[in-house]
Amino acid sequence: MATPHVSANADVRAAMAATNRLFNDEVFGKGNFSALDDIYTQDARILPPGAPMISGREGIKKFWMELVAAVHATGATLGSDDVMYTGDGVVEIGHATLTVEPPGQSRAELAAKYVVYWREEQGRWKWHVDIWNFNA
Amino acid sequence: MATPHVSANADVRAAMAATNRLFNDEVFGKGNFSALDDIYTQDARILPPGAPMISGREGIKKFWMELVAAVHATGATLGSDDVMYTGDGVVEIGHATLTVEPPGQSRAELAAKYVVYWREEQGRWKWHVDIWNFNA
Repeated sequence: MATPHVSANADVRAAMAATNRLFNDEVFGKGNFSALDDIYTQDARILPPGAPMISGREGIKKFWMELVAAVHATGATLGSDDVMYTGDGVVEIGHATLTVEPPGQSRAELAAKYVVYWREEQGRWKWHVDIWNFNA
Repeated sequence: MATPHVSANADVRAAMAATNRLFNDEVFGKGNFSALDDIYTQDARILPPGAPMISGREGIKKFWMELVAAVHATGATLGSDDVMYTGDGVVEIGHATLTVEPPGQSRAELAAKYVVYWREEQGRWKWHVDIWNFNA
């Protein structure tokens, strides 16, 4: 008997992992902020600690450009802790390690955790709602 | 023509508002932490700023008891900014105002924002995943 549901979920998991890698490799690794087009939906929202919510991909791009520049961020590795399929979206709980080298300070790794509500847009799985905070 | 979907959504909205009021009135207002049974699902997770994720309602009760005692929290008013129906759950973006009166300090209001993934459990709409952070 075929198991199309499980198979479809495996495809979604692979697509999610590819999106998450883009965030580390392109955005943080190379400073390629146009990669955010493939990471966030057009009308995505982010809820960053220490700032109000930001709506829309253009504002989100500006946020990440400024943050990466401000703290000299060089990496953001993401790991899924739970993936909940719900309707045509996915709710993910995950953890992140941000690598930063602020001017005049030594390299540091910050432990964060996040919840992302994923939606499919133009054949890609993207972050539609993204909220995080730090563990310490 | 009947519109059962819209009607059902209005019921869900009302149920969500009732749960959110419980959090302010019972948990923060009266220190009635058993009300958390009606607010969080049995296997809920919270992702608080400044601490690791906590899994399960018993651990979540302990967290809120300790937090309310530590900062003398007296209120937590919640407001929905977006409610997204997804499968048999709901993803909510909202904002909160926490009223605190830490020992030796004057009363303060803290602006927070949150994402909650809601699920129905035993006829009630409850928080299944709850993450928040502060705006400043």
